[in-house]
Amino acid sequence: MASDSSRLKLIVTGGAGYVGSVCTARLLEAGHEVVVVDDLSTGHADAVPDGARFVEGDAADATASLLGEGFDGVLHFAAKSLVGESMQDPAKYWHGNVITSIRLLDAMRAHGTPRLVFSSTAATYGEPERSPIPETAPTMPTNTYGASKLAIDHAITSYARAHGLAAVSLRYFNVAGAYGRFGERHTTETHLIPLVLQVATGDRPHISIFGEDYPTDDGTAVRDYIHVADLADAHLLALTHARAGEHRIYNLGNGTGFSVRQVIEACRTVTGHPIPAEVAPRRAGDPAILVAASDRAREELGWKPERADLEGIVRDAWRFTQERKALGG
Amino acid sequence: MASDSSRLKLIVTGGAGYVGSVCTARLLEAGHEVVVVDDLSTGHADAVPDGARFVEGDAADATASLLGEGFDGVLHFAAKSLVGESMQDPAKYWHGNVITSIRLLDAMRAHGTPRLVFSSTAATYGEPERSPIPETAPTMPTNTYGASKLAIDHAITSYARAHGLAAVSLRYFNVAGAYGRFGERHTTETHLIPLVLQVATGDRPHISIFGEDYPTDDGTAVRDYIHVADLADAHLLALTHARAGEHRIYNLGNGTGFSVRQVIEACRTVTGHPIPAEVAPRRAGDPAILVAASDRAREELGWKPERADLEGIVRDAWRFTQERKALGG
Repeated sequence: MASDSSRLKLIVTGGAGYVGSVCTARLLEAGHEVVVVDDLSTGHADAVPDGARFVEGDAADATASLLGEGFDGVLHFAAKSLVGESMQDPAKYWHGNVITSIRLLDAMRAHGTPRLVFSSTAATYGEPERSPIPETAPTMPTNTYGASKLAIDHAITSYARAHGLAAVSLRYFNVAGAYGRFGERHTTETHLIPLVLQVATGDRPHISIFGEDYPTDDGTAVRDYIHVADLADAHLLALTHARAGEHRIYNLGNGTGFSVRQVIEACRTVTGHPIPAEVAPRRAGDPAILVAASDRAREELGWKPERADLEGIVRDAWRFTQERKALGG
Repeated sequence: MASDSSRLKLIVTGGAGYVGSVCTARLLEAGHEVVVVDDLSTGHADAVPDGARFVEGDAADATASLLGEGFDGVLHFAAKSLVGESMQDPAKYWHGNVITSIRLLDAMRAHGTPRLVFSSTAATYGEPERSPIPETAPTMPTNTYGASKLAIDHAITSYARAHGLAAVSLRYFNVAGAYGRFGERHTTETHLIPLVLQVATGDRPHISIFGEDYPTDDGTAVRDYIHVADLADAHLLALTHARAGEHRIYNLGNGTGFSVRQVIEACRTVTGHPIPAEVAPRRAGDPAILVAASDRAREELGWKPERADLEGIVRDAWRFTQERKALGG
């Protein structure tokens, strides 16, 4: 264990990815010691923040090898996270997400590692009838990605209860924005804001709007966009609020929904580009509205999103997109 | 694949256990060819019905080795199934149930095995607010056993959808009774009817009633007891109704609840033993009423419980108990 109680010695799996790299940067700024474990299957070695030690390897195997050094906790971001792929190739998700996480839990138990913060997802809820969505909503995932994360949440609950692990699962809604030199660099981009910004950079001819006949104000689907730095802050709070033998689950969103058309309009304002949009049919399994009720995180963690303004989120994403473009990536 | 379309070549994992052995006996009677795979961790070699080939081994590894011979389907009963143990030693359930089942699904996919019937459980629902419980009820398991079975159900859904597997999950409520020489021979017995009958045989001084202040007619907890032979029949129907690319889920119960006191009274009637009972506090996590809505199985499978009479169920269990006692086991 680390000797200074305020300085924690941590492993961040998936720390070369989008959320993991931002969280690592924030952990380092807060004075913690971080070892990033990432197999670079989707992450980028140059996204690992300076100041973090980097070990290339599997989230279970490489972490298990490190844990003997004595760590205060693991933040487990490493995951397969493409919904479409999860439907085509479920084995990749049951192995890469579920089995890997069970083996990580076994290793943490073997080494007595006390804390775990896990990246769960709003996809565990599926298509809830009511919005905003509290943590008490039924978990009925409609895709394999969500089902794999739900199985891990259940496994964490069982290990916390049986073996005294202090665990927190954070269920992300739509993460967006960038922080410093860390942002979204997905090879397969499926998120709305980066896709819209690809139109502004000329890398995509237009943006598709899937469905404009939803029962929402402007007919397009409404989602809850949360700034990646706000999300990272919740992880730091989760680390200090985790209690031995408990597995707490928190939804993370702004609690404010923005429609697809509102997002496109914000991107037009920020980029000055007209961003042509084309309406396409609804996609199967896309609910009208997905907005988080994050009251529990506000009350129990003292967390508050500081960057909830949509234009601000888009502005950070746009700055990051232009910087990457200038770097040729 | 088997050449005669009505005669199927099947693997039954866990066929040396209680439900698996009864199901194997019924499959053989129906003219199917059965290979039982069982690691005998809780099953008994002498419980494998005559006429079945027996392979001692792990449900994933041994089955994977056999599948190359060409099978029409797998009935997957092998599992860790003690709720209390699952809370103390969750790893045993995440490995023995979830990881083993994922590996079984991988093997079936690799060999193109077309059909799977899986033993799921009412414990996937947790403690529902309403009873009877339909398949559309939220799945919020409160113990690790139920969570592990739910994860497998989700994995099966994903493999069926992606790879064309024809799959059925049967969610058992309280299985009871015996069939021929096949019945409950658990080393750790946790089920009410065998426990009450142990009082009648003199192996237990009294039966404990956990809670008599439930909001039920006589204050004791109400459960849905289904005869093991009725349950087995549902498996035979599931095999023929399974459709490629679909994962169907059916609750199996009589739809009639019996209270703990009613069960004890039926055991008194059948055995002629006074069966002393002592009231103890409620156990954590025991809901007042758990009764199945099995309409879907009745409508889609044409299934109907033929042995729903409580005294008849107890009579079969008592006959089996006395026969085992005479055998010295």
